[in-house]
This record gives sequence, structure tokens and C-alpha cells, in this order.
Amino acid sequence: MEFHNVTATLLLSCPDQRGLVAEVAGFIHDHGGNIVHADQHTDSEQHIFLQRVEWDLEGFKLSRDKIETEFGDLAKRFEMSWSLHFSDHTPRIGMMVSKLAHCFYDLFTRVRVGELKAEIPIVISNHPDLAEATESYGAKYVHLPISAATKGDQERAAIEHFEAAQVDLIVLARYMQVLTPTMVGHFRNRIINIHHSFLPAFAGARPYHQAFQRGVKIIGATGHYATEDLDQGPIIEQDVVRTSHRDSRRDLIRKGADLEKVVLARAVDLHVRNRVLPYGNKTAVFA
Amino acid sequence: MEFHNVTATLLLSCPDQRGLVAEVAGFIHDHGGNIVHADQHTDSEQHIFLQRVEWDLEGFKLSRDKIETEFGDLAKRFEMSWSLHFSDHTPRIGMMVSKLAHCFYDLFTRVRVGELKAEIPIVISNHPDLAEATESYGAKYVHLPISAATKGDQERAAIEHFEAAQVDLIVLARYMQVLTPTMVGHFRNRIINIHHSFLPAFAGARPYHQAFQRGVKIIGATGHYATEDLDQGPIIEQDVVRTSHRDSRRDLIRKGADLEKVVLARAVDLHVRNRVLPYGNKTAVFA
Amino acid sequence: MEFHNVTATLLLSCPDQRGLVAEVAGFIHDHGGNIVHADQHTDSEQHIFLQRVEWDLEGFKLSRDKIETEFGDLAKRFEMSWSLHFSDHTPRIGMMVSKLAHCFYDLFTRVRVGELKAEIPIVISNHPDLAEATESYGAKYVHLPISAATKGDQERAAIEHFEAAQVDLIVLARYMQVLTPTMVGHFRNRIINIHHSFLPAFAGARPYHQAFQRGVKIIGATGHYATEDLDQGPIIEQDVVRTSHRDSRRDLIRKGADLEKVVLARAVDLHVRNRVLPYGNKTAVFA
Amino acid sequence: MEFHNVTATLLLSCPDQRGLVAEVAGFIHDHGGNIVHADQHTDSEQHIFLQRVEWDLEGFKLSRDKIETEFGDLAKRFEMSWSLHFSDHTPRIGMMVSKLAHCFYDLFTRVRVGELKAEIPIVISNHPDLAEATESYGAKYVHLPISAATKGDQERAAIEHFEAAQVDLIVLARYMQVLTPTMVGHFRNRIINIHHSFLPAFAGARPYHQAFQRGVKIIGATGHYATEDLDQGPIIEQDVVRTSHRDSRRDLIRKGADLEKVVLARAVDLHVRNRVLPYGNKTAVFA
Repeated sequence: MEFHNVTATLLLSCPDQRGLVAEVAGFIHDHGGNIVHADQHTDSEQHIFLQRVEWDLEGFKLSRDKIETEFGDLAKRFEMSWSLHFSDHTPRIGMMVSKLAHCFYDLFTRVRVGELKAEIPIVISNHPDLAEATESYGAKYVHLPISAATKGDQERAAIEHFEAAQVDLIVLARYMQVLTPTMVGHFRNRIINIHHSFLPAFAGARPYHQAFQRGVKIIGATGHYATEDLDQGPIIEQDVVRTSHRDSRRDLIRKGADLEKVVLARAVDLHVRNRVLPYGNKTAVFA
Repeated sequence: MEFHNVTATLLLSCPDQRGLVAEVAGFIHDHGGNIVHADQHTDSEQHIFLQRVEWDLEGFKLSRDKIETEFGDLAKRFEMSWSLHFSDHTPRIGMMVSKLAHCFYDLFTRVRVGELKAEIPIVISNHPDLAEATESYGAKYVHLPISAATKGDQERAAIEHFEAAQVDLIVLARYMQVLTPTMVGHFRNRIINIHHSFLPAFAGARPYHQAFQRGVKIIGATGHYATEDLDQGPIIEQDVVRTSHRDSRRDLIRKGADLEKVVLARAVDLHVRNRVLPYGNKTAVFA
Repeated sequence: MEFHNVTATLLLSCPDQRGLVAEVAGFIHDHGGNIVHADQHTDSEQHIFLQRVEWDLEGFKLSRDKIETEFGDLAKRFEMSWSLHFSDHTPRIGMMVSKLAHCFYDLFTRVRVGELKAEIPIVISNHPDLAEATESYGAKYVHLPISAATKGDQERAAIEHFEAAQVDLIVLARYMQVLTPTMVGHFRNRIINIHHSFLPAFAGARPYHQAFQRGVKIIGATGHYATEDLDQGPIIEQDVVRTSHRDSRRDLIRKGADLEKVVLARAVDLHVRNRVLPYGNKTAVFA
Repeated sequence: MEFHNVTATLLLSCPDQRGLVAEVAGFIHDHGGNIVHADQHTDSEQHIFLQRVEWDLEGFKLSRDKIETEFGDLAKRFEMSWSLHFSDHTPRIGMMVSKLAHCFYDLFTRVRVGELKAEIPIVISNHPDLAEATESYGAKYVHLPISAATKGDQERAAIEHFEAAQVDLIVLARYMQVLTPTMVGHFRNRIINIHHSFLPAFAGARPYHQAFQRGVKIIGATGHYATEDLDQGPIIEQDVVRTSHRDSRRDLIRKGADLEKVVLARAVDLHVRNRVLPYGNKTAVFA
């Protein structure tokens, strides 16, 4: 059995400059922390330094509040964007679904069998279909129908429900609606979508039909943060599977469903384990 | 050791109709042929029947000429497009290159070590760089410089050279020029290009730079028949490799180079072993 | 929408001989059948001919019983082993599980969302843990504890339960018990197991621990028919995923769980769609 | 174009202890170095800390000799094993081959087109076949025949030739001889072998034949350091490719050849770019 102490994790990015690694490592070391994972990357084109560092809180001399303030000073000096996470917080996920249920079931099952260290307290849908299933998992189901006229209202309601449920992350599990900039902006880099193609190929509607039409020999799926531009957000994870001329549209959909589940689950897992650092329209994934 | 008799291979396509498998198999069986490989596919949407059938010529009662004429009658009845190939013919490849040489070396090496059952008697390039290397492989190098003004002439010369060398197939081994409809039409479905992306993603120029910009987690390469529409031809083979935020543009180019070689070589090998049946803008690959 | 008529599928194998393709295709054609899928393979080393052929029953002049008897005559002439399947029969699966539940949930979910065209009427386990979950899917749960002394009895009871439930296939969904030759022989080539390694690497117990110890860069999973020899049965499907030095034992188990689900589901799906033809200790998969 | 300054790279391992990251980063920072790449890993089971750190020598205040001595002091304090590399040294590779030539050609081609930043000044073989080809690349070919009686002498001669040529790394490019412990010990962790299977599956002789016999659906290749135990050395890189029942032994060999080339080339490239840190029978690959 592996034993895990509580750890703190910093995700940070800033303009590249000398001594950053030494500075951050020194901060942790000087207060008695033991680094259990550190990974960093310099985007040498954009001159951005990106780092993930995780240390054991056992024996660390700063309280959680103090870490915020003391590291905040250091961060200011280097113009860092940063976030701080503690491993004893279980991330809370709000899900949005329509009717297609394979990703929905997959995520709940992963939570149930312990693969995904998270809770899913709430599901919001524009359809009533998955209410019973959601409740069987002990989560709240909110049915918010959508029409062109009510879209704004529906999203405002969704935001309120998610805020009330104190979700850390929203997962669009084959949710067939485009979010407005309002919602995307409200949860910046905290909404993960699964697109059922190998982006940027086959962006937009019905990617498997496009793939079938084009006669590709491989299809893919993409887990990414939702942004204002449909299917253009920072990519977290992608994977592919082989196809052949024998595969009908329906076969592509069937093969793709497995990809969607696995890729979405990996993207969500990376996010909730604080392994993803979005910057610009990209991500660094410290896996 | 495996012993191979000479075989005949038919590649055919026609409107789908009852009894096609029985008809073709009957034709071969009735003349004393033993089928060693048969594969067929019905595109149930376009109602097209596609087949590859290969049989042992040992004991077959029709001469090669007779096969043409007798099968031709059957083919006419079913409105087939078809081609006939004999395994004792070594396919002849004409290569087109610019300066990037990894695919060029790779193909010649495969011929040399016996992996690719083909000859490469001629290489045509718009640059002089690979003349010596080509000649060291015993092939003819034709340097045909190109300018906007001379493009038509250059292609006419290329066609003549390729015809004189009796090539069965033209391989664009990272040839950095767009072919005109004249040349594409002249060698319809007999020109294979390698595009250094997972088409249809990143069509056009500098795909690795596009991929870097977009922050994809996987890059690809595509072997396809050249058509009038750049990067739109029927896809024969694709493959991908994982990348990460750590990969610079240069890393993508380096990783991609291996994909390009392997994917192009597979596409060429499938073609020369008569495994590829293009139809519309797709291919059936009877691997 | 795709419309599917009822089809019949023959899976057959026999000593290779001239005219087999023509003979089978002729049989179907002569009775008015239209072949919608045909695939065959000759194992040129063992001189075995293997074929899958599927035809539309619309307009076919033989009744189902008649097909059995009339094709039986042809089959006898060529010493064929063969089986006949009709597409309007929904395959019935009996599952065996222990405590690990990810494959269990995955298969039930696939049935529920319609990805897997099958029913799972019964689950047998040596532990009581998944009783409630099984019943929530409307299936029967049979708890048959095992000890060294009772193994024979337990298996006999399992066989009876499966026979009573008229299952066509048994799926060992991470069932942590070795079956005896009695049970394997009773359901010859009708028991599919998932082994959590890339066989033949890491056969036997605790493959992820073995993989961790060895420092492999890729792990795998294998779906195969159970035989008397543990982990030696005919392989239906395998897949792999990359790992790195960063992956702990626990990470391998987590990554592997996804592989297990997908590979087992693919193997089961191939089997229930009559795409798998086992012969000797191998399979031909007419995908 | 990317411009690269000269960099220094440290590869180190030691018993895990607090403050290591801070210590090493501090050493570099205090002497005016700018870290351009740092990656570390703690094997939490064996309590070993592993690190790769690379920094720009531009503006660094210690001479190369001084780095050795000053870092040596720090290293001693933490009981580190370590090595130091400078990016303006072009690694020198000695190759060993028998008759199979695809990996041989592949490596030379990679050097020629600039993909592999290394030189290959010498090739040693137990056969004369590749002498001319080697010399056409401007390298020295040493033919050292082997018999059971002369094996010791042959290896001593090989070691002398490699030492005289000042090689940093020996690559067994499908060299069909087992090395003795003497040779392996002489070049500890500096001999890379390509095994044509997905180790530990199909260790030993004729892996493709074993794979064919077993009916696997995927084959692989493994690049690893040679050790006294055949096929047991630390694995650097592995990859796989799909196969099917249609693939004959010969097809497996053909498909596998591409894997061997790519996997060997990746392993060699990772090594010469100082990305591989062997420890025990494993490697950390800081890619």
C-alpha cells in the first residue's frame, strides 16, 4: 500500500528570467518542505516559464494561509500567475449533458470505483432523460430546457446552480450546446469539453460524418478547455484509433465513443490532479 | 523459406449487384485457378462493390492475354472498372524530390535491403542536390528547375522522362511543388504524395508550424494519391505520434520525419502490392 | 439512419482446397441470397481455409432449418467446421466477476446505451459485493463462494446457472479465479477472459507489478478465449498504452484499467457480432 | 532558425533527501547560470532521486574544469552518481552489425540528413558484407570474424578498436551475437541493443516466429542497454504495431523492421542528447 501525506501544489507561470527554479525550490526548502514532484518548462519562443511543484506539508513550517501570503510576495516580484492546491480537497465536478450518455456513465463509474478522485454533486441538462440515473448516483439533476430565446436565462441559472454546488470544474460530457462567452468567461479554464474528432480536423458539427466522407484511416477525440471560439480552446489530451474502409458511419461512432470516454476521463483526471497549466491557447501537461 | 508461385491479381469495382462474389470466384475456379487471397467490400451508401482477388497461375488454363479478354467480357456485363496485375512484374517507381532527403534515402534503402519489391530507375528534382546520391543507387537523376514561367514545360519534360522510364508509379518524396491538373490527370491514381500532417488537419503549408501553434498533443502524416485539389486526394495510410508541450517546432519536425518515412513507405508498398483500390475520393485498402 | 435486414452468417474452417470461395458463394447465390460481407483467409502454413460470409435473408429461398441441412451437406464434403448465426438473435452473456468492478460496470453500461448488442441476464461471483449493482441493471446475481474444497461444486453450479440462463457467451470481467478444464471444455471457445498485460509478457499473477519491476515503457491488455492453460488461449484483441518512469504501480493499474475495459469490450463485441473464428491457438478476426 | 548557445548538462542520481532540487538549482544560479531544462524524478519505492539539469554556459562564471571539481564537492555530500556533458561535443558512435542492414542504413542516413547529432566513425562486424557501404559513408569498417574459440579475442579486438576511435556509445544494430560480460562491463550503460520484440515477451531467438506462433495482435521492438543478462537490460524505448491473422511470418518481419529502426533511432537519440538516466535495471527518460 502506498501512503500519501497531504501535499501542497503550486501551478505557476511568468515571464522567463534567471533563477526561477532556485527561487521556488528555495522558498519551499527554507520553510522545511520536501519537494515530491517538480516539473517545469520554458516556452523559449514566448519566453514564458511554467512550473508545477508539489511538496509534503508534513513538517512544513507555514500554515496554509501563510503560504498564500508569503508565496504571494515572491510571486509578485516575478510577475507570476499562480494557483495553490491542497491534496486533501476533493475536487467537485458539475456535469452538463444532453442525451448521449456514454461519457456521463463513464465519469460516474470512475468516481464510484475510485479511479477518479472527485465528486460529482450536480448534473445540468437541457433534456430530462438522465434524471433518474443521476439521482441513482446520489447527485442532483437540474433540467434546464433551452431555446434560442431562453439561452441566456438557462446559462444564468446553470451558473447559479454550479456556484451553489461549489463546483471546481465543469465537464461537458457530450453536451450538445455551444456556451456563450458569459459562461465561458465565468469559469475561465475550468470548463472541459470533449470534441469527437482529432482537432483541428473536423471541428464543428458531425465530425464522424465528416471523417467518413473524407475517408480518413484514423479518427480521434480531443479534450480541451472551452473558450469563446468553438473547438479552439487549449487542448489537454487527444487520442486516436485506426479505422478502415470497412467502417460505416455507425462503426466510426461506436469506435469513437470509446475514445471520447477515455480522452475526456484523462483530461478531467489531469485537471483535478492539478497537472494542467493552460497558457495562451495551449497547455503544459505535467503528467 | 516461403515459396511463391506467380499469381494474378484483379482489382475491380462496380455497381453493387447480386452474385458478384460467386461470379468472379466461379470465373477463376472454372479455369482451374486457386484463389490465394480474396477480399471484397460493399460501400452500402454508394452501392459500390469493390474486390481484390489473387490466384495462383500454376495450372490456370488461360494465358495472360486470354485472361484480359475473357475477364473483360464478364467485366463489361457488370460495368466493372478493373485492372490486372502479375506478381512477376517488378513495379517501377519514379521519384520526385526537392531538398529534404529523408524519404528519398528511406525508399532507396528499402529497395536495397529488399523490403520494398520495386525498382526506382529515375528521380526528378527541381534542385541539383541529390544527383550524386541518386546515381550511387544506380538510378538516373534529372534536374528540372522550376519557375512560375517554366512550370508547364518542366512538367511536360517530367512526364516524358517518366514515360520513357516506363514507371508504374510516381512518388512525391517531400516534393515541395504543387502539380498541375495536367500531370495529375496523366497519372491518375498513380501519384502518391506524403503530407506531413494528419489530414485534413493542417492542410497546406508548414503543417508542423501550424501544429505547434495550435498546441496539439499528437501529430500525424498522411500518404495519399495526388489529385487536382491540394491535400484532398484519396487517403491510403495515416499514422500519428504523441507530442507534448516540451516539443519545439524543431522537435515536431524531427518526430514527424519518422512518421513521414514510415507512412509513405507503407502507402507505396500497399500500392505496389496491388492492395489499394481508390474509388471516389476514398480508398479501400485490402491489407 | 441505416436500415438492416436480417442476415445469416456462416463461420467456417476446413482443410484448404481449390474452389472453396466459389462453392460457398455459389451456394448462397443459387438460393437467391445477396452477400453483404465476405472475408476469408488461408493459413498457408497449416493449410487451413477460414471464412466468414454474411448474406441478406430477404429473398433467400431456404428456411433457416433448411440452411442448416443443405449447407451441412456441402460442409461435410469439404470437412468443414462451421457455425451459423442469425442477426435477429440477441446474444446472451453470462458474466463472472470478483470484486474489481470497472469491467463489470463498463459492460453493463455498453449494453444500456446500445453500444453492445447483447443482453447480460446473469452475473456469477465468488463475492457478494456486486449483487445490488447487478440487480439495478435487471440481471440475476448468483453468489457462489469458492474454497479449494468447493471449487468443483461451485463450477458445476455455475455451469447449471449459465445453462439455465441460456447464455451464448461467458465473460470473465476481471474474475480472479482459474477455471478448471471441466468448465473450459463445457464452453469451448465461448469464454472470454481479459488479462491485464500484453501477453505473453507478464502472464500469471500481478502483471502490473511485474511491469513496474521490469521498467517497461508500454503496458497492455489482452482479450482471449479461456483454455485449460492459463493465459495461453487464442488471442482476440490486444492494445497498449505508453508509460514512463514517472508511473508508480498505482498509475500503471489506473492506466491499465482503461485498457482492460476497452480491450475486453472490443473482444466481446467482435465475438457477439460473429467476427472471430478461433482455430488452433489462434484466431482470425474478420473485423 | 533557432539559435543554441553551448549548454552543460548534469545527469545525477542519489539517495532521496530534502533540499536536493534547491541545492542543485542554487549551485547553478549562484554561478550565474540560466537553467534551460530541468527535470527530476523521485523513485519513492527505492528512495532514489534522479535529475537532469541543463544550463546555458553563456555568462556562467565557472570554467568547465571548475564545474567538475566544484560540483564534485556538492555531489560527494549527497552521495551522487553523476555525469557532465557539454553540447558542443558531438557524440561518437561505434556500430556493430552482422548481415541485416536496415538499422545500419537507417542510422547512417539519420546522421547524414542531420536528424541524429552524432558521428559514426567505425563499424565492426563479424561478416564482411557491409564494408563497402560503410566506407561510402566515410567510416572505418573492421571485419572481425567470430567462432566459439575466437570470441574472446574478437571482443578484445573490438574493444581496442572502439577505444582507439574514442567512441562514446556502441550501438548493436541487429548484431546477432551475444556479448560477454567483459565487453558489457567495459562499456557499462554505453551499449544500446535493439531487440525485435516487445520485451519481456519473446526474449531470445526468433521473436517474430514466436509471435507468429502465439497469434498476437500486436508486435513490438525494444531499445535497451546491454547487460550480462541477455534481453534483460534497462529499457530505453519501446513501440508496437498492429498485426492480424493475415500477416505471415514474413509480414511480421517486414512490419517489425520499421519498428526496429524507429525504436533504435529514438533510443540512440535520447542517449546522445543525454536524456536517459539508467538506475538499477530501469531508466528514467527525461524526454
